[in-house]
Amino acid sequence: MKQTLAVGIDIGGTNTAFGIVDRRGNILEQGSISTKGHKDIDGYIKAIYDALKPLMDSVIGRILGIGVGAPNGNFYKGTIEFAPNLPWKGIIPLGEKLKEKFQLPVQVTNDANAAAEGEMAFGAAKGMKNFIMITLGTGLGSGIVINGNLVYGHDGFAGELGHVIVEKNGRLCGCGRKGCLETYVSATGIVRTVNELLSARSEESILRNIPVENLNSKDITIAAAKGDKLAQEAVDFTTTILGQSLANYIAFSAPEAFILFGGLARAGDLILEPTKRHMEENVLQIWQNKVDIVGSDLNEDDAAILGASALVWEIPAIN
Amino acid sequence: MKQTLAVGIDIGGTNTAFGIVDRRGNILEQGSISTKGHKDIDGYIKAIYDALKPLMDSVIGRILGIGVGAPNGNFYKGTIEFAPNLPWKGIIPLGEKLKEKFQLPVQVTNDANAAAEGEMAFGAAKGMKNFIMITLGTGLGSGIVINGNLVYGHDGFAGELGHVIVEKNGRLCGCGRKGCLETYVSATGIVRTVNELLSARSEESILRNIPVENLNSKDITIAAAKGDKLAQEAVDFTTTILGQSLANYIAFSAPEAFILFGGLARAGDLILEPTKRHMEENVLQIWQNKVDIVGSDLNEDDAAILGASALVWEIPAIN
Repeated sequence: MKQTLAVGIDIGGTNTAFGIVDRRGNILEQGSISTKGHKDIDGYIKAIYDALKPLMDSVIGRILGIGVGAPNGNFYKGTIEFAPNLPWKGIIPLGEKLKEKFQLPVQVTNDANAAAEGEMAFGAAKGMKNFIMITLGTGLGSGIVINGNLVYGHDGFAGELGHVIVEKNGRLCGCGRKGCLETYVSATGIVRTVNELLSARSEESILRNIPVENLNSKDITIAAAKGDKLAQEAVDFTTTILGQSLANYIAFSAPEAFILFGGLARAGDLILEPTKRHMEENVLQIWQNKVDIVGSDLNEDDAAILGASALVWEIPAIN
Repeated sequence: MKQTLAVGIDIGGTNTAFGIVDRRGNILEQGSISTKGHKDIDGYIKAIYDALKPLMDSVIGRILGIGVGAPNGNFYKGTIEFAPNLPWKGIIPLGEKLKEKFQLPVQVTNDANAAAEGEMAFGAAKGMKNFIMITLGTGLGSGIVINGNLVYGHDGFAGELGHVIVEKNGRLCGCGRKGCLETYVSATGIVRTVNELLSARSEESILRNIPVENLNSKDITIAAAKGDKLAQEAVDFTTTILGQSLANYIAFSAPEAFILFGGLARAGDLILEPTKRHMEENVLQIWQNKVDIVGSDLNEDDAAILGASALVWEIPAIN
């Protein structure tokens, strides 16, 4: 008998990527379409169908279901709800529409939860039952795994650690409140920190040569690795807040490890080592030297598709 | 057939209370012994046995197991580990010793987790699958329930929300770190707040008539209820920090409700109403007006025994 397969769809603000994945995490086929520019949600669904169906036909009869990772995706309802960076407003019954079009079971979750599923099935969290996934991109996303299951809470939206308030009256967040973790710890957050340092100080820095509007987190970690003091200060400031936050999250769910993913995490030990140090400085004694911080070991381009596909194996009818 | 029963044992620093409980939460028999003054742990176990066995003989053959709530109790291992307020040092294999003595299955957990089990089985959390129990006593204990299960994490110690750091370089905590939630929000914490206010201010307050060494949290809530401004300020300060913290915990596990238990919670709306208000001021928009804060509705004297007994119904061999 041929091995069974799952489709993973990753919906981003700009692109939608999809792939056909086997149970060991090999991507057999993949493609993408633009998320934007469709007449409405039905036009978008049709565009996915038109691009994905030919790939599926090559493995006809072997696909068991479709998993979707999307911003503000709700696992319980299969909806996307009020996603600020997607073209469709309000509550979109995405799961239902895909199910109708493809005549396959569909599971939807948010992108960070999909990432956690992917790490658990194929990546750095293989074999772990209790871990917390942290994705560092434009914002900070999180997926919390307890006893081998993603935490969805009462309403399906649990695990928004980017919106834990870490600084009273701190930086204004996109959510309208102040001092959220993601305003400090994210690709955007570290750029804000550097911009603050650059305007408050007159010291030399490689980063002064980059036009403010172009400065990104990679420039900062590269400069820090080269010994740029101001960049190093920004890294230390960022990892201090992240380490303190992780120490607090341990008191909640006592995970075995944190898995870090995304641009900042790709800087490796430059970020992981000080984060670990600041976490250890702040954690309750019973957890000292017990909790790891590791970088994702999935290929960044594939991770979102793998994570979304892993959702299929969670569909009750399939197990 | 006669209804089956469970024994609940609540180990406190001073007293150990126990009872025989039916599945509906009726305590059929109960008693207590001193926790202190025994030669060693075996002497203590023998004292429990001598006091409890006669009660058990009256319902012979109907008792399925023993549940124990104890400070620093570890659910996975059945141990009590390094409990600062108990007479025995190091790691105590309490579950094993009780099992051997009574020849019954035994389940051990910490006191706050037992309280959460009790609320779920018999109290304010009946029918809830996602809630967080907060016990306000000398410290702040917590039991986190997700999908109907207590969260124990990788090592059995999850759910130490009293030791989330809420104030950098804040008040010194018994754990050796600074700024833990329980240094502000607990019976002890609110007394510390009042003492700070009394020495910083010269304004009149009923609380000045109480000798500092006798002042307790009940005096403070009574004074606040009578309109004492300084006491009211202490209540507002305490409930602000608690409300902000609960708002952050919602971002973690999206519970349906928080259940508050213990001396401070007994003050009812005086504490619950401002805590709820401060929580709503700080919570992410998607959770506004979605999460309840309720006081425990179990009798305080019985709650610990009920909670411990409820553990028995979690023993796999019994279900």
